[in-house]
Amino acid sequence: MNHNICFIGAGNLATHLSKELQRNGYKISQVYSRSVASAKELGEKLNTSFTTSVAGIDSSADVFFVALKDSAVKEVLSQIDFQNKLVVHCSGSLPITVLDEYSDNIGVLYPLQTFSKNRDLDFHKIPVFVEANTKENEQILFEIAGKISETTSALDSGRRKSLHISAVFACNFVNHFYFIASQILKSDNISFDVLRPLILETAEKVQQLDPFSAQTGPAVRFDEKIINDHLSKLNEFPEYQELYNSISKSIFEHH
Amino acid sequence: MNHNICFIGAGNLATHLSKELQRNGYKISQVYSRSVASAKELGEKLNTSFTTSVAGIDSSADVFFVALKDSAVKEVLSQIDFQNKLVVHCSGSLPITVLDEYSDNIGVLYPLQTFSKNRDLDFHKIPVFVEANTKENEQILFEIAGKISETTSALDSGRRKSLHISAVFACNFVNHFYFIASQILKSDNISFDVLRPLILETAEKVQQLDPFSAQTGPAVRFDEKIINDHLSKLNEFPEYQELYNSISKSIFEHH
Repeated sequence: MNHNICFIGAGNLATHLSKELQRNGYKISQVYSRSVASAKELGEKLNTSFTTSVAGIDSSADVFFVALKDSAVKEVLSQIDFQNKLVVHCSGSLPITVLDEYSDNIGVLYPLQTFSKNRDLDFHKIPVFVEANTKENEQILFEIAGKISETTSALDSGRRKSLHISAVFACNFVNHFYFIASQILKSDNISFDVLRPLILETAEKVQQLDPFSAQTGPAVRFDEKIINDHLSKLNEFPEYQELYNSISKSIFEHH
Repeated sequence: MNHNICFIGAGNLATHLSKELQRNGYKISQVYSRSVASAKELGEKLNTSFTTSVAGIDSSADVFFVALKDSAVKEVLSQIDFQNKLVVHCSGSLPITVLDEYSDNIGVLYPLQTFSKNRDLDFHKIPVFVEANTKENEQILFEIAGKISETTSALDSGRRKSLHISAVFACNFVNHFYFIASQILKSDNISFDVLRPLILETAEKVQQLDPFSAQTGPAVRFDEKIINDHLSKLNEFPEYQELYNSISKSIFEHH
């Protein structure tokens, strides 16, 4: 069965997910965002109606996807009468129970990926995790998730939070280290381009290997001379020096 | 001109580099390692002679590639009479001057990549950095580097050290975060497989974007509730908790 879906939120995740659902035959009946620019942009991409007013949300949809910043969920949802339709949030961190008070039919559909607005992704490779308050709702969410992804699993709120934390390390923190690397290079007028093959190979290695076996470099060998040498060269960047020190120690202690 | 090359060292880097040089027509005349297993393994891979005795190193080679752990360089090289042949080390951290006392012809050839023994790489995509004590030696090294890589540049010892530090962040530290993520997942019995598409996309994003624009997640949005929630969930891992805290702060301060 193909549902009419309303999207509450129009950020990176909402954009990718709604487009992918539409590509797979779902009707996106409406998009809400409090930002005019975001609502309009996504509405136009999907060729569907959009609203910036919570009161303007059309309750005739069968499923409501909530893809808001976590801190905005309560404020927005408390203004909507969902008439016990299926309300689904897409957050890694929020438990399913945050939806308890808004409908008798609630769930979570969490695609594990880093979404940037203007970057196309092969959604079918993205693992999607679902949770619902009843077997029936779980089945609906598995049906929707299965249309857009090859890898779907049930995951409860507690384990989803662990998954989200691990993703923060493996993606956001990793990306911050790419940024730190770029700043160090910049200070010596070296292009970030030279690091790109290394960055890609580091990620490709762990597509087969486990990260423990993939580790290389001075910290895992505990090459004290190099480590101290790097630390002293980082004198001009006290913040990076501190990170270098604590992470080298952590690598060494785990190997 | 094709040189006869002797390899001093038989680790991951020596293995990849010597195989690639051989594939491009260079004769690897001999391999030295103090470990019998490593010397034999690489000797057999290259179908060339190997020795585990410094005294057994054949000084008839034209070029000596030194691919040893930094801390072993001095001890090994001080026992060899290079007869002023070209001696080249492959270290990111050591300055070219560590070779001063061993020959009048010295240089550095530094391929920027993470090498694991049993993993094939497209060497032509790896940036290779060279430095030499004379224009003639630099030309020889550019000729060799140009055979194995599309991207060759001159880089002095000071800037090479910055490059190496940036690589430690972008590769070794990044891989450690993959490891931490795997440990967090393991504690909740979730397979590391689910993170692999995220890890790859995070690296692929910065092949085009700069890392600053690629950043996503709770820290860059400064979503305090999620951050505090993650921190309290990490109570069972005090070490990861501390890293989570300091890196989230660092992300927020830079954005």
